[in-house]
Amino acid sequence: MNLLEVFKDSKHQESFAAGAEVITEGLEGNHMYVVLSGEVAISLNGRVIATASEGEIVGEMALINAEIRSATVTATTDCVLAVIDDGSFRSLLKHVPDFNLHVMNVLADRLKQAYELIED
Amino acid sequence: MNLLEVFKDSKHQESFAAGAEVITEGLEGNHMYVVLSGEVAISLNGRVIATASEGEIVGEMALINAEIRSATVTATTDCVLAVIDDGSFRSLLKHVPDFNLHVMNVLADRLKQAYELIED
Repeated sequence: MNLLEVFKDSKHQESFAAGAEVITEGLEGNHMYVVLSGEVAISLNGRVIATASEGEIVGEMALINAEIRSATVTATTDCVLAVIDDGSFRSLLKHVPDFNLHVMNVLADRLKQAYELIED
Repeated sequence: MNLLEVFKDSKHQESFAAGAEVITEGLEGNHMYVVLSGEVAISLNGRVIATASEGEIVGEMALINAEIRSATVTATTDCVLAVIDDGSFRSLLKHVPDFNLHVMNVLADRLKQAYELIED
């Protein structure tokens, strides 16, 4: 599913300068992001565990199972992100089957990466 | 979503004795399980990272993003599991919105647990 195509004209966008913190672990969160341009890094205690670039999502976990951010997300380049609030997220899950599968794939991929890190 | 209720009369069930390996990391897999009775443990290199008991699922990752098992699952007690093959899984995802959300929640919960282990 090409989320860049779906969200590139989204009215709710935020820009972050390289180095800026997009999501802070431990804080409450009620929206996720689609990266429209640039790149962000997902980190735990300063250790980068994954990156997300154009068309990829971050911050979806807080919308699914908790309101508390499980990891920190930092802009590694100047970037523009589309903001998807909880209501829009639920609506997408309900009405767009491909979005469901996409989010599930992202979670499974990140889980696989996390298991590899635990094993190392 | 009460998966025990949905699958307790499933015709495709498998029984495992305490200590038996249900899923082996690194092997190919094309089905998942719903625990109907007993308990299983999910482990990486012998380290238990999660457990699943009545009504909970294991083995879903291989159906979502890969055919290779990302972790090992062992019966910690005698247990009975309902077997869900890839076709049934896709059908459930397509036709049962609650199943989608349930799988997404399980993945997000396991990811949160994995991140906590990485941080420890």
